[in-house]
Amino acid sequence: MAQSATAFAPASIGNLAVGFDMLGLALDGVGDRVRAERTATAGVSITEVRGLDGELHAYLPNEPDKNTASIAAQAFWDEHGDGGGVALSIFKGVPLQSGMGSSAASAVAAVVAVNALLAAPLPVTELLPYALEGEKFASGGMHADNVAPSLLGGMVFCPSNLLPDMLQLPVPEGVSAVLIHPELQVNTAASRRGLAATVSREAWLEQQACFGGFIAACAANDHKLIRRTLKDVIIEPQRAAAVSCFPAVRDAAMQAGAFGCSLSGSGPSIFALVAEAQAANVADVMTASCRGQGIDCQSWVSSLEAPGAFIES
Amino acid sequence: MAQSATAFAPASIGNLAVGFDMLGLALDGVGDRVRAERTATAGVSITEVRGLDGELHAYLPNEPDKNTASIAAQAFWDEHGDGGGVALSIFKGVPLQSGMGSSAASAVAAVVAVNALLAAPLPVTELLPYALEGEKFASGGMHADNVAPSLLGGMVFCPSNLLPDMLQLPVPEGVSAVLIHPELQVNTAASRRGLAATVSREAWLEQQACFGGFIAACAANDHKLIRRTLKDVIIEPQRAAAVSCFPAVRDAAMQAGAFGCSLSGSGPSIFALVAEAQAANVADVMTASCRGQGIDCQSWVSSLEAPGAFIES
Repeated sequence: MAQSATAFAPASIGNLAVGFDMLGLALDGVGDRVRAERTATAGVSITEVRGLDGELHAYLPNEPDKNTASIAAQAFWDEHGDGGGVALSIFKGVPLQSGMGSSAASAVAAVVAVNALLAAPLPVTELLPYALEGEKFASGGMHADNVAPSLLGGMVFCPSNLLPDMLQLPVPEGVSAVLIHPELQVNTAASRRGLAATVSREAWLEQQACFGGFIAACAANDHKLIRRTLKDVIIEPQRAAAVSCFPAVRDAAMQAGAFGCSLSGSGPSIFALVAEAQAANVADVMTASCRGQGIDCQSWVSSLEAPGAFIES
Repeated sequence: MAQSATAFAPASIGNLAVGFDMLGLALDGVGDRVRAERTATAGVSITEVRGLDGELHAYLPNEPDKNTASIAAQAFWDEHGDGGGVALSIFKGVPLQSGMGSSAASAVAAVVAVNALLAAPLPVTELLPYALEGEKFASGGMHADNVAPSLLGGMVFCPSNLLPDMLQLPVPEGVSAVLIHPELQVNTAASRRGLAATVSREAWLEQQACFGGFIAACAANDHKLIRRTLKDVIIEPQRAAAVSCFPAVRDAAMQAGAFGCSLSGSGPSIFALVAEAQAANVADVMTASCRGQGIDCQSWVSSLEAPGAFIES
């Protein structure tokens, strides 16, 4: 029986333009790390929250009932814990309120680490409900479009009304994801409260067609159809105003050949899908457009088959 | 250069519960036949409209500007005709205003027959826009969920905003479609005008999730997920009242093991998807329920891979 385990869980792109609350993509090389250690005291506690650089984290609380990692771990431990308690050390690599699934990555890493303490760990597909408890606290909604890809990797379709199904979907060959994170903050829960309660029948049908077309295009490796379907006609227009740099960054990405470009989650991060060979250039022009508007940003280029959460030690 | 050609085009299930206006399924063994003959007179005319039994048809007009077959054929001939004219003999196997894609089957059969008169016929995938002209006249909307499966066969995803894409989707193994046609009439265009202009965000997301989930379930041959996703939470509730026998027929189908059961198109036809081995029994209980309510009906059991339109001679 392990005394400690450390797990890494990737950041992710929520919504992926076409699939509000139900489609997400894991990102390569950026994520959160959680170390779980058995303690004699019952329950889940937080030892420390640091950046990946080792510095103490300026914003995140140590109170276990206010951190998505400990909330998720507690939900898991309540059902599957084998006595005693767990202390978590959380290392944040994903910027907060970035639209990169920061809360999901912490929740997933925590549950995966705590699961590894058990004599008979659960299969990864059974961890979703516990990680979602953390996400629910953070975003105010029970949607899995960040948690599911962070857990499984790749592109995952996971509508809340079909839980516990998580469908890892085929991804097209030769396509990369580019993501930039402008130094702005968007509050996810507030962004959700601001959404219109109804949509027109035309918009619903257009969006559903794009969603189905995009899934089919990915499976068929049809880049042309990806280009025609990768768009969000309902949510993005309602959220774009909160991310001042978005229109120009999107235009720059599209002019540089991106298949599509939209907000990641509720923003401010902006992603594009693009042919692999053009990914570095698209990342450059998106970054240049953002900085040209006086807003600094970080950028990442990712495979569409980024691995999901895993145990590091 | 052929002097005449006869084409058969199958009936179809529109909407297929999850995909309003964008998903349809061809049916085995029921359809319309159109014979096209070259004439010296320019333009497209109608020689006769008969039932498949050879009797003159009681309702359908011989005026070429009021029949979906001739409207579609004329649109095709205007662009691709090689001189002279075409006379159509139309043999209706699909009941009118049945929700079985009757107008689409006539339009498709006409275009396929006329195409076969050319020295170099177009590929079938290029015939969609012409057949749609006939459908537009009949239903008042530019949607291809009957025309596309009647043309290509099988299950076809064809959203109007992505035209001219027609995506023939993988179908699950061991699944059949059952359809009953109660002797009621529903006017498609009127039914469309009665639909609400907006939907709630929750309903949109649930329906989109079911649509994506159903497509993925079909590709993955996941009967359990088909059962959970094959439903229409937006349109069916608005149309069910027009088909008095529907609730009891659906309940009977579901109790007999159907994966899902909904209206075909705007009704009155009712379809169910069901495991092949149970299809005959489900057809029986649906028929019995309908007749038990004092409404006579016909029933069909179809493969999910019914062939599309073809030249008979």
